[in-house]
Parts: sequence; structure tokens; C-alpha cells
Amino acid sequence: MSSSIIGIFFGAVLMFISIFNQGGIKIFLNLDALMITLGGTIAATFISYPLPRVIKVFTVIKNIFKSEKNEYNRYIAIIIALALKARQNSILSLENDLRKIKNRIIKVGLQMVIDGSPPDIIRDVLETEIDYMRIRHSEGEQIFRTMGKFSPAFGMIGTLIGLIAMLRSMADIGATAESMGPAMAVALVTTFYGAMLTNLIFYPIAEKLKSMTDSEMLLNAILIEGILLIQQGLNPRIVEKKLNAYLPPHLRKGHMSTRGVR
Amino acid sequence: MSSSIIGIFFGAVLMFISIFNQGGIKIFLNLDALMITLGGTIAATFISYPLPRVIKVFTVIKNIFKSEKNEYNRYIAIIIALALKARQNSILSLENDLRKIKNRIIKVGLQMVIDGSPPDIIRDVLETEIDYMRIRHSEGEQIFRTMGKFSPAFGMIGTLIGLIAMLRSMADIGATAESMGPAMAVALVTTFYGAMLTNLIFYPIAEKLKSMTDSEMLLNAILIEGILLIQQGLNPRIVEKKLNAYLPPHLRKGHMSTRGVR
Amino acid sequence: MSSSIIGIFFGAVLMFISIFNQGGIKIFLNLDALMITLGGTIAATFISYPLPRVIKVFTVIKNIFKSEKNEYNRYIAIIIALALKARQNSILSLENDLRKIKNRIIKVGLQMVIDGSPPDIIRDVLETEIDYMRIRHSEGEQIFRTMGKFSPAFGMIGTLIGLIAMLRSMADIGATAESMGPAMAVALVTTFYGAMLTNLIFYPIAEKLKSMTDSEMLLNAILIEGILLIQQGLNPRIVEKKLNAYLPPHLRKGHMSTRGVR
Amino acid sequence: MSSSIIGIFFGAVLMFISIFNQGGIKIFLNLDALMITLGGTIAATFISYPLPRVIKVFTVIKNIFKSEKNEYNRYIAIIIALALKARQNSILSLENDLRKIKNRIIKVGLQMVIDGSPPDIIRDVLETEIDYMRIRHSEGEQIFRTMGKFSPAFGMIGTLIGLIAMLRSMADIGATAESMGPAMAVALVTTFYGAMLTNLIFYPIAEKLKSMTDSEMLLNAILIEGILLIQQGLNPRIVEKKLNAYLPPHLRKGHMSTRGVR
Amino acid sequence: MSSSIIGIFFGAVLMFISIFNQGGIKIFLNLDALMITLGGTIAATFISYPLPRVIKVFTVIKNIFKSEKNEYNRYIAIIIALALKARQNSILSLENDLRKIKNRIIKVGLQMVIDGSPPDIIRDVLETEIDYMRIRHSEGEQIFRTMGKFSPAFGMIGTLIGLIAMLRSMADIGATAESMGPAMAVALVTTFYGAMLTNLIFYPIAEKLKSMTDSEMLLNAILIEGILLIQQGLNPRIVEKKLNAYLPPHLRKGHMSTRGVR
Repeated sequence: MSSSIIGIFFGAVLMFISIFNQGGIKIFLNLDALMITLGGTIAATFISYPLPRVIKVFTVIKNIFKSEKNEYNRYIAIIIALALKARQNSILSLENDLRKIKNRIIKVGLQMVIDGSPPDIIRDVLETEIDYMRIRHSEGEQIFRTMGKFSPAFGMIGTLIGLIAMLRSMADIGATAESMGPAMAVALVTTFYGAMLTNLIFYPIAEKLKSMTDSEMLLNAILIEGILLIQQGLNPRIVEKKLNAYLPPHLRKGHMSTRGVR
Repeated sequence: MSSSIIGIFFGAVLMFISIFNQGGIKIFLNLDALMITLGGTIAATFISYPLPRVIKVFTVIKNIFKSEKNEYNRYIAIIIALALKARQNSILSLENDLRKIKNRIIKVGLQMVIDGSPPDIIRDVLETEIDYMRIRHSEGEQIFRTMGKFSPAFGMIGTLIGLIAMLRSMADIGATAESMGPAMAVALVTTFYGAMLTNLIFYPIAEKLKSMTDSEMLLNAILIEGILLIQQGLNPRIVEKKLNAYLPPHLRKGHMSTRGVR
Repeated sequence: MSSSIIGIFFGAVLMFISIFNQGGIKIFLNLDALMITLGGTIAATFISYPLPRVIKVFTVIKNIFKSEKNEYNRYIAIIIALALKARQNSILSLENDLRKIKNRIIKVGLQMVIDGSPPDIIRDVLETEIDYMRIRHSEGEQIFRTMGKFSPAFGMIGTLIGLIAMLRSMADIGATAESMGPAMAVALVTTFYGAMLTNLIFYPIAEKLKSMTDSEMLLNAILIEGILLIQQGLNPRIVEKKLNAYLPPHLRKGHMSTRGVR
Repeated sequence: MSSSIIGIFFGAVLMFISIFNQGGIKIFLNLDALMITLGGTIAATFISYPLPRVIKVFTVIKNIFKSEKNEYNRYIAIIIALALKARQNSILSLENDLRKIKNRIIKVGLQMVIDGSPPDIIRDVLETEIDYMRIRHSEGEQIFRTMGKFSPAFGMIGTLIGLIAMLRSMADIGATAESMGPAMAVALVTTFYGAMLTNLIFYPIAEKLKSMTDSEMLLNAILIEGILLIQQGLNPRIVEKKLNAYLPPHLRKGHMSTRGVR
Repeated sequence: MSSSIIGIFFGAVLMFISIFNQGGIKIFLNLDALMITLGGTIAATFISYPLPRVIKVFTVIKNIFKSEKNEYNRYIAIIIALALKARQNSILSLENDLRKIKNRIIKVGLQMVIDGSPPDIIRDVLETEIDYMRIRHSEGEQIFRTMGKFSPAFGMIGTLIGLIAMLRSMADIGATAESMGPAMAVALVTTFYGAMLTNLIFYPIAEKLKSMTDSEMLLNAILIEGILLIQQGLNPRIVEKKLNAYLPPHLRKGHMSTRGVR
């Protein structure tokens, strides 16, 4: 189960208990306040980004709840197996494996290796591929970060509107603590919403997207290195050593029967 | 329709409803408050930047409301067609196409290719061209970001002026909640204006200009790469593969009848 | 006329009107408040930077009020004329032009060209020259940015001093709104000064210095490129094309009778 | 003893005295307040990062309390001894030393030297190794920095909840200073907790992890340089000079009987 | 005299006058407040950094009060003299000068030149030397910047403690402005201390250390360039031109009887 689900559940329970302990959930539920805080944030986000990019964000959110799997070793094993086969038979013998592989980087790279493209063109194409993949993936993160900046601002704008209206009405209806208190309470609810949205939703999602992109980029770096090593026809042991260097020591596996340190 | 129009319309309606629900639009309309917040921001912007650059900004704003079109594939198709023609006939045969092309980068680049300039000079000229294009385009973004910083500051300055005047007058006219409330309300309107200008106008426009520049720079990167590939006389299939690598997978089209992955 | 003068004039008028509308300029003039805000800022700036650098800043300020001239084309024309002459006669024939040129980069560079220094040494010397010129020019900007950070801080410190003294005196003289209001008003004036100094003076000047340095560095990049092209004895048409690439399209001029796009 | 232990002890005593002097520790102990501040921070952190990474953080904390040892010279001495032996006998003679060495970088590097791998592959593998080691180590720092940002935010959220509930209740139970004061005090305790957690725990730990990573990376830079120098078979005196250049002058030792400056 | 001494003196006098004008220095002297603000800052700093690094900072502070001397020209003259001697006699003739030179970079570099080390090893050793010198020097700056961040935070924590205690006591002793005012005043003194420490001490010292490191690094860049030029045996006139390029025009001196621009 993804840690994000645990976190969201845990955070929601916590807030619920805190609010409940303070004697009433009713005052914290306010549609007007939600409209100005979340609505304002969404409006500002629409002005800030092209439409397709904003829409794509909602399709990205679901990835956050996927359980994190560690696939580095699975892919390193695939690369080493391919390197071994390419060395024993020939690079052309990898053509059959191509159909079984789903990962885009290995697929594109391996086909170019089989087609006999020169290494610098392969590296060029693959690095362009992951450079722009990184840019696209960081766009989602960037939108959530922007929403995380707008959200407390619109929370404050909502509170200002309530505050100004309340202060204005003082001349007419007088200012007793009994009348001002609840009006002030309502005004502050938008600030509360803004702070909650940013700190329990927008920023954590932005951070999560960032760390997901980082993991993916590490995998891609391993794959590009691996494909070029296959083409060079290097000893699979050196391939393993070079690819293992990307991983933390406790994740490294001896895919081959090597002697010495991994 | 541009998402910016949707966002601005949606944001304006939202603010109007919120303010209306609070019982009165009148107190939120205040010419003095607008003068100090917007006027102060514009004055500070004039001190900060040379005159022509500030003026140019107003011509840039209208681009924000243009609908975003995705033209990558149109240009990749043009490049591939040119590459094919250059390979089948000769590079000189591209001279006629030159007149029909409007894009500056292709035009400048292609003419240098036809003139027989060496590749490193072509790359040099085109990269200088887009480096400084990026700098010029980011100037507009930068000005809006600066306005987004000045605007809440002048909102706060306006509130301070109102607050100081109100506190001052207490000694003379006494301090009843009935008299202080409305004065305080008026003072807070400038803070409200500052927050609105920044979060619904200045920052979103700056973000939009940034993402427009990013799209343009991606297109330019594709075009430079494409022109140099035309000159090298590479196989149009490799041209397509190298240019497609810049795009997200769902946008990639098979311009040629390729086998395998795109 | 420089836009900075317009901005400062406009900003001052605006503040004056706002304050006047609030019913009195007298309370906003307070020598003690100015002393602590501006004095504190200057003291902190003196601790932060070596003496000669702080003093130099005052000589830099006057440049801000100079009208911005666009000299790129004038210098490109000079470079092209020199390139033409060097090609038709010889590089040594440029010796006479050397005396008429005032710009330091052209002067230093051209003399090295005439002396027959190798291109990499010329590039080295000129790039060191402009690298450190950029560092020196950005020092002025940096000092104003630092002052822009200290100024609201000392405004707040002044308000804290006033506030503490006022709260302290409550035990002795009682706390009526009539006595606390004006004391509070005086305390807030330092915050007002701090915000004004930063947003109408320190930050705008820092921004202006930055954009002046940027313009100068663009000119220097053009000049270095130009001098090395003169030495290479390239076709003046290519010289023009390479130098024009640095400029926005609307500023490019056809210094030579070129065909095609500029 | 680690300076971190001194700092935490000193900080705790200080806070205790300050609170005690203010007349009572009881009001500052509040389980609800701790739950919302620390609980909210942890919930947001769980959403932000994959589960294994959050868990790993707790295993990292204990390193902070280890006493800092300066091991640069010990490792430089080892490198020089190996360089000497490799020069007098042969590189293969280092095989026996390999078993005694525990440091991962030396072990991996030396074995590749003995295996006769070319220098650029050794440098590649070792630099990949420390690049990704740096990334992994900075993840811990990054999590604490994120917690340091969430913690005051949830402190403020807790205060907002308390404030809104208090203001709300005014209409029912009236608003006397006697009833509002303590309620307000309780509401502020969460802000206090948020500020304490960030400034005495989260940020200092993040800084400490950063400076620990910096020290480790300096050592790694020395070791990679050293292993490549052993392979080159350079004069141990030059080895010493090159490695000493990484250290501050007062830490440099003459491992060999050198003449002149170290 | 150093500008830092002027600044500190000027700042102290200013604060004294301001406080005195407000009618009493006594309330601003508060040992408890100093303990929590400065003590908390120091405690957090101890947790953040290894012990030796914190201690070293105190030895660094005294450098801030040293008068700034401009030694660029003195060192350029030395380099040119050495270059002349090396050209007229031989590089070995510099052995005698070695003893008289105190600057570490010249000493280490020159000895390697005399020993006949290849230029790339000399550049390597010297650049490693100054890279890590820069890192070590920036550590002091970094510690003061961290203290500048902690200091207002602990000021705020102190105020929160005072505020909570005061609000708590309202239920028991009642809340009259006469009793609350002074208690509030005492609570605010810690915020005042935090703001003063940061803006008159920690940040200015950090800035000063930064500009001192910048000057030193400029000198080191000149020295490395100079030593390599001596080894190349270049014409001292070119040596002078290349080294002068690092300096602002008004500091450049004609160490040799050169014609033309400097």
C-alpha cells in the first residue's frame, strides 16, 4: 500500500479529532469558504497554464496512490541477460527479445543497437528522450507547487473580504464581542482551508511527484548506460559492476557469480 | 479558447459572488485604494526597467489569450519533407521552399544550409538566435513577477497609511468601535487589492508567459536539430526518430511508414 | 528621459496624494523614524561591505537616471566596417582606427589582433575582462538588494521599540484609546518608512542596475564575437548575420546590401 | 562527544528555564497540541515520500549523535602506503591489502585497478558510485527540511482551529477577557510547538546531515583521486601533494619526509 | 579602519538614541530575553554543525575588523618580476625567491614549476587547493546565515512563551490594560532581540565574510593564472595584460612601460 494513502488517512483522522475536540464540526464546514479558496486557486491555475496541461494533472494524481515498487534489480537482470546473449551469439540475436520488452527506453535503444546505429546517435536519441521526459514529468510537480502558493493567498483574500465586511457593518449594528466573534470565526475559516489544502494536499503531492520522477530518472540512467554497454560488447561482469554503482549497497545483487565486493 | 480566458472569467465571477454574499460591493470599490496599490506598483516598475521594455509588456499580454495550438507535428512533418527532398534531389533544390516558409529559425537556418555554410557556424548562429530569444521572452515574465512582488507591498503600504491616520485621529474624535470599524475596513481594502492583483493577474500571467516560452523553446530545439540533420543528409527515418524523441509519446506520429516503436 | 525619473516622480506624487487624502502629512514626517529605519539600514550595510564598495555605490546611482540608448547597431556597424577594411587591405591597416575608438573592449581586443596574438589568448583576455566586469557591476545591485532586505527589518525594529515603550507606560498612565492610538500611530511610521524605502527605492534601483548590466553584457558578447570574426577574416556578410543573431528581429538592420532574411 | 548532544541538552534546559520562569510548565504540556502539530507534520511527510524512504530516516538520525572524527589523514596515509608498495613491487602485490580494507570506495576501486580495468572505466564506476551516494544521503536531509516547513504550518493550523472555535463560542457564552485569555493561550500552544520542532529539531538535523554528507564527499573525492594516482604509478610525493591540496593547511601532515611547503 | 567597526558603532549609537527617546532603557535590558534568543540560537547552531566548525567561527570573526587592503597590484608586480627573471635567466633561478614569498598559492605553485611538474598537474593541485579553500571559507558565512535564520525564530518563541503565560494568567488575576500592557511589553522584548541580532550582527557578518572570500578568490585566480604564465615563459607584457584583465580599470597599473591601453 502506498505511504500516501496512509498519510492522507492519518492526516484526515487527525484533523477530524482536533476539530471535534474543539466542540463542533459545523462551523468548519462552509461552502462559501471552500468556493473562494479552492475556486480562486483553480481559477489562478487556469490562467497560469495551458488547458491540456491542467487537465493532464488530474490523470497524474492517481499514480501517487500506486504502491512503490523497486524495479531496479529486475531491469539490471534484464540488461545483464541481454549483454550475455549478445556476447555469446551476436547483437542481431536480440531481435526476438525486443518484442517481449515493454519499457520504452530499452525498446527504442535496443532497436537502434540492432539497426547498427552509431553509439553517439543512440546516446543522443535516448538522452533527448529522457531529458524531455523529465521536463514533462516535472510540469505536474510545478503545477501543484503553484497551487500550493495560490491556495493560502486565496485563503487570506477570503478572510480579508469577511473582515472588511464585518468592520464595515460595525457602524450600523454596533460592535459587541457577541456579534463580532462568530463573524470573525467565519472569516478565518478560509485561511484555515487555504493552509490545509496547501499543507495536506498540494505540497505533499508536489513532493511525491518529484520523488517519483527522481526514481524514474535513476532507472533511465541505468538503462541508457546498460544499452550502450551491450553495444560495446563488454564483459557482463563489468556491466554488472557499472550498473550496480548506481544503487545503494543494500539493494545490489550479485546477478552473476562474482568474487569480491559488489 | 484559451484556458486563461476561462480562468479570468471564472475567477472574476467567484470574487463577485463572494463579495456580494458578504452584503455589499460598494465598500470594495475604492478609487484611492486602487490608485495607491496599482499606481505604486506601476511607479516601482517604471523605476525598475527601461521604458521600452515596460511598454513592450503591454503588447505581450494579448498573446496570453491566444488559444494554444500544438504545432510540433506540423513542423516535424515539414522538416522530414525537406530532408526527403534534399536527399532525393539535392540541398540546392530547397531554395524554392524557402520562400513559402514563415518560421524565422527554419528560414535563417535553411538559407545558411543552401549557402553551404559549415555546420558549426549554422549551429552557432541559430543557437545564439534562440539563446537571446529566450532572454528577451523571459524579460516579460520577469517584469510581471516583479509587479507581483510590488503589488502586495503597496497594498500593505496603503493599509499602513490608513491605519496610521485612523490611530492618529483617535486622540481627537475618540475611539468607538462604531467609528473605527469602517475606517479600518477602508484601510484593509488596499491589502485586498494588492493580494488580488498579484494572485489573479500578475503571477498567473508570469507563469503563463513562462510556459509559453518553454513551448517555443522546445519547438526551436526541434527545428535546429532538424536543420542540421537535413544538412548531414541523414536517412529521414533517423531524422524522424531523433525529432520524435523530443515529444511526449502520445504526440508522436509516424510521418513515415516506420516499423517498430516510435 | 529615463523611465526611472518618471517612475520616481509618479510614485512620489501618488504617495503624497494618498497621505494628503488621509488628512494630514504631519504625522508621516518623523525624524526619529527616519533615523532608525534609514540609519539602521546604512549601519548594517557598512558592517556588510568593505568601505570602498559602499562609497562606489553612490557614484553608480546617477547612471540610473541616464536615458537608455540603444547602441547595438552603432557598434555592429563599426565592427562590420572594420571587418571590411581588414579584408580589403590588411589587419594592420586598422591601427589608425584604434585611436578613434573609445570602447574599452574593442580597443583592447583590436590591439591584440593587430599585435598578432593568437585567437585563444584574445578570447581569454576579453572574456576575463567581461567576466570580472560583470562581477563588479553586480556588486552594486547586490548592495541595494541587501539594503532592501535590511530596510523593512529596521522598520519593524522601530515599531517594536515604540510598541514596547507604549505597552510599558500603560501601567503608569493608564490605557485609554485616546492615548494609545497616537502612540501606536507613531510606532507604525517606521514600518511605513521601511516599506517605502524598499519598494520605491532599494529594490527598483537593484532591478534597474541588473537590467543595465544585462544590456551591457549583451553588447560585450557582440563585441567579442565581432573582434574574433575580424581576426578570422570572415566574409562581412557572415559577420553581420552572426552579430544580428544576438538582437531582437525589430532591431536588426541590414548594414550591408544582403538578400534574404536578416 | 557530539556537539549535537550538547546543543540538544543546552536547548532543552534553556526552554525549561524560560517556561518555568513564566510561572508554570503545565499549560505548555498539551497532548492535543502535540498531536496536531507533530501528527500533521508526519502525515504530510508520509504523503510526500515513499514509505521506505521515510522509515530509513529514523535509522539515519542516530548517526547525528556520533562523535565527529577526522579520518582524512588516516586515509591519505593508507593511499600513500599503497602507492609506495605498488611502485616498489607491483600493482598485483596490493591483492593482499584488499582484504584488510573496509572502506567501500577503496575496495571497489583497488580491485578494478588490480583487475587491470582502464582508468576511465574506474573513474566512471567510482564517480557514479559517489554521485548516487550523495543523492541518497541528501534525501534524508531533504525529508527533515520538508518536515521543518510543514511543522510551523500545522502549528498555525492548530491555532486557527482553536481560534475559530473560541470566536464561535463568543455568541453563546459571552466574551470576557477572563474566559478568552486561557482559550487563546491554549490555541497558541500549537504555534509554539511548531516553532520549537522546526528550530530545535528539524532544521538543525537537516543542517547536520548536510555537513556530514559534505565531509564524506570530501573524503570520497580524496579517495578517487588517490586510487587513480596509484594506478598511474606516480611518485608518492606528488600523490601526497595532490591529496593534501584537498585539506585545510592545519590538517596537512607530512606523511613522507618532504622538503618545502606542504 | 574597517567599515565594519564604523557600522557597528553607528548602529549601536542609533539604537541607543532611539530607545532612549522612547523614555527608558531599562525595559529593553532583560536577561531572560537574551538567554532565550541568543541561547536558543546557539543551541540550534550546536546541533546543526560539528563542534570544531562552530569553534573555528569565533576565530574568524576578528578578521572582519581588519582594514581591507587592496593587494592585487602588489601580487601582480611580484608575478611580473618573477616572469621577467624566469625569462632572462631560467626558471631554476626562481629557487631563491621561493623563501621570501609567504603566500601559500605562489609558494606551492612556484615550487612545482621549479620541480618541473607538468602544467596540468600544477593547475590541478592549485585549483583543488583553492576550490576547497573556498568551501572552507564559505562554511563560516553559512554558519552566520543559519544563526541569522534561527535568531528571529527564537525571538518569536520567547514572545509566544510570554504571551501564553500572560493569557493563561488572565483567568486568575483579571485582564486590565494596566496589567496586560507591561507583560506584553516584556514578551515583545525577545522579538526585538531576535530582530536586532539578525539584522545588526548575524546577516551583516555573513555578508562581510562572503565579500572577503570573493576578494580572496579573485586574488587566487590571478595567482594561478600568473604561475602558469611564468611556466609558459610568455612575454611579461602579455602576462601583465592577462592579469590586468581581472581588475577594474581604475586599479590597473602599468607595471611595465607598455604602450596603448591597459
